[in-house]
Amino acid sequence: MRRLKLGVVGLGQRGFSLLKYELLDMAEYEIVAVCDDYEDRIEAAQQLCNEKGHFPTGFSNPYDLMHPEIIDCVFIATPWLTHIELSIEALKRHIPVAMEVGGAYDIHELWKLVEVQQETQTPFMFMENCCYGRLELLALNMVEQGVLGELVHLSGGYLHDLRDEISEGYHRRHYRIDEYQKRNAENYPTHEIGPIAKILGINRGNRFVTISSQASKSVGLHDYIVRHGTDEKIKDARSLSFNQADVVVTTLKCANGELVTIKLDTTLPRYYSRGLYVQGTKGLINEENQSVFLEEDTTLRDHFTWKEQFNNLERYYERYEHPIWKNYLTQGVRKGHDGMDYLVFKAFADALINDEPMPIDVYDAATWMAITTLSEQSISLGGQVLPFPDFTLGKWTKR
Amino acid sequence: MRRLKLGVVGLGQRGFSLLKYELLDMAEYEIVAVCDDYEDRIEAAQQLCNEKGHFPTGFSNPYDLMHPEIIDCVFIATPWLTHIELSIEALKRHIPVAMEVGGAYDIHELWKLVEVQQETQTPFMFMENCCYGRLELLALNMVEQGVLGELVHLSGGYLHDLRDEISEGYHRRHYRIDEYQKRNAENYPTHEIGPIAKILGINRGNRFVTISSQASKSVGLHDYIVRHGTDEKIKDARSLSFNQADVVVTTLKCANGELVTIKLDTTLPRYYSRGLYVQGTKGLINEENQSVFLEEDTTLRDHFTWKEQFNNLERYYERYEHPIWKNYLTQGVRKGHDGMDYLVFKAFADALINDEPMPIDVYDAATWMAITTLSEQSISLGGQVLPFPDFTLGKWTKR
Repeated sequence: MRRLKLGVVGLGQRGFSLLKYELLDMAEYEIVAVCDDYEDRIEAAQQLCNEKGHFPTGFSNPYDLMHPEIIDCVFIATPWLTHIELSIEALKRHIPVAMEVGGAYDIHELWKLVEVQQETQTPFMFMENCCYGRLELLALNMVEQGVLGELVHLSGGYLHDLRDEISEGYHRRHYRIDEYQKRNAENYPTHEIGPIAKILGINRGNRFVTISSQASKSVGLHDYIVRHGTDEKIKDARSLSFNQADVVVTTLKCANGELVTIKLDTTLPRYYSRGLYVQGTKGLINEENQSVFLEEDTTLRDHFTWKEQFNNLERYYERYEHPIWKNYLTQGVRKGHDGMDYLVFKAFADALINDEPMPIDVYDAATWMAITTLSEQSISLGGQVLPFPDFTLGKWTKR
Repeated sequence: MRRLKLGVVGLGQRGFSLLKYELLDMAEYEIVAVCDDYEDRIEAAQQLCNEKGHFPTGFSNPYDLMHPEIIDCVFIATPWLTHIELSIEALKRHIPVAMEVGGAYDIHELWKLVEVQQETQTPFMFMENCCYGRLELLALNMVEQGVLGELVHLSGGYLHDLRDEISEGYHRRHYRIDEYQKRNAENYPTHEIGPIAKILGINRGNRFVTISSQASKSVGLHDYIVRHGTDEKIKDARSLSFNQADVVVTTLKCANGELVTIKLDTTLPRYYSRGLYVQGTKGLINEENQSVFLEEDTTLRDHFTWKEQFNNLERYYERYEHPIWKNYLTQGVRKGHDGMDYLVFKAFADALINDEPMPIDVYDAATWMAITTLSEQSISLGGQVLPFPDFTLGKWTKR
């Protein structure tokens, strides 16, 4: 098997932990270049690599490693702000790109990304690991097998208490603290909209036609910082104010009539969830109580005693486990976000090595990332409904 | 104790079952008049009443019973279409009104209801039983005690598979079948928005300022009717088409910055839920998995293993049971929608007998019912955000 010479750009929380838990152990990759703004991060990454038999060169300028003689492909795990510009440059140099997730700042950069990828025909994959979540793939499989009937309503969320990460942003050298001060948007839509878009066939016979977003007040971070004000790690955050709403709800209408809602909820105390909810004419899947309700499996009594059926998912994994996960469970699930990280990097490597289409392509990336920009505009306009761009330029009707 | 001579207008599903399970057994009421368009319903109601020692006169015209010499107060349980016009007429005749829930058809009728009630100062209560739900009152109590911190986001729904009721509408002489053919709206918002509005202090220091609604396609009823087409009870529905979306999501923004979403989901297979979700800076309550998450009671481990905490509500009932329910559980909970029906009729009787303000007043009714009209307009405009009327004319700032 051909081994891919990979350059990793961005060695923060995400880049470093992916090296540590996935990439260095995967036969598909040889890490030949690592890059970050911070020298200590480069050194730490190199040391980690060396321990596992990889000997990457360190770079502080990402453009210096983007050469076909150095790398076969590049993984972009920088702050959101530079994902697209770095990816565009790599594509222009015909270097295949694995781009970490995030949202867009303006629709313009998404058109540019799509155009450059289409012009260069360089492989590009958007590394949305949650498309490989076990529950998400169960849902996809059940939908593809028609178990839920005709789809009507889907929802999801990025429901993750990030108050520590954000308020310690300067200490951690993490970018969310800047985003949360200045912007007010659905800033991280892809973990839920990725799987939802796959289930709905977005850009493949379906598309989002309108979007609107509404935002709550912003009080969670301030409240947290005041209460933890003596903590050395957040002392630099005490004087800050935050534009970012605690909760943003976004509604998307599809060409085929399905209604989608997604929610951002990252600055209030809560348990973690992606809140996946998939509903059709024959039943539903609800992550929030870990249950599947199928008309064929239930009686009227169940309608009013459903709490007895919470956590009934296991029964449906037995019947409808997605082939990817059926295989994965046999092989042994790897570390890294419940095993999803391995699968998304395996998929990128497989597609690249076998010269096959990327499973999450540039149209997916542009569509999902556009939500951040459009939600920001809609919120600014008080919740105005906005048209959704068609990055495929009509090709979604034929794909 | 004074016993209230009550006239019941509308003896369909709701009126008849309330007589059967609540009103005839309550010491507060003597049923002296029953009214319906259908003679057989009047006779059945009279027979039921007679068995329990009530001997109401039967009326086919509601205006004939609205006389102070006949009744002390009237309960309006007709189809949604006539709730407001009948209530207005009763108020004009100075007959106190208990009005069953439903949505409005135009904002105009709500202004008229408010004005007539204010001019006549006749007692009026909107009979939203879910304001007396055990979970809803737990949430209210926890919020009032500050346990959830500052409120940020609330949601709820009327999530009830009504496909049998609607498609059998002609057989049952029930009105939803007409509503679902012609309209497309959040047609039944009050079961969730009532408790949410109470928790948020809507019209009492807070108010809804904007609203927008989005609707899914409409396929659930058609699918159901096709599959059950041989059933005699729905044969009259086979040729119908339905404008009403299967799922409608409505977003409301509050003057104090809270974000509210509500969902109508009545024509797809599902378990029953009102989906109450109340979230603040210190924690949340989530009906969908019957749990309370409080920052003070949880560790980081809980964030990622929350399914172990589903159904943890009992612990919080022990600590924060609302006084109304604490008392009710001691006395013995009555039948009728998990005991809520008794409480709402007890509240009406108590307020009337003791000449106290109605706990759910005409401003509440107008505000909650307006959602149906406004959602219909917003959906027609593709999800346009609309201003929300202030039925208190500014008095919400002082109430």
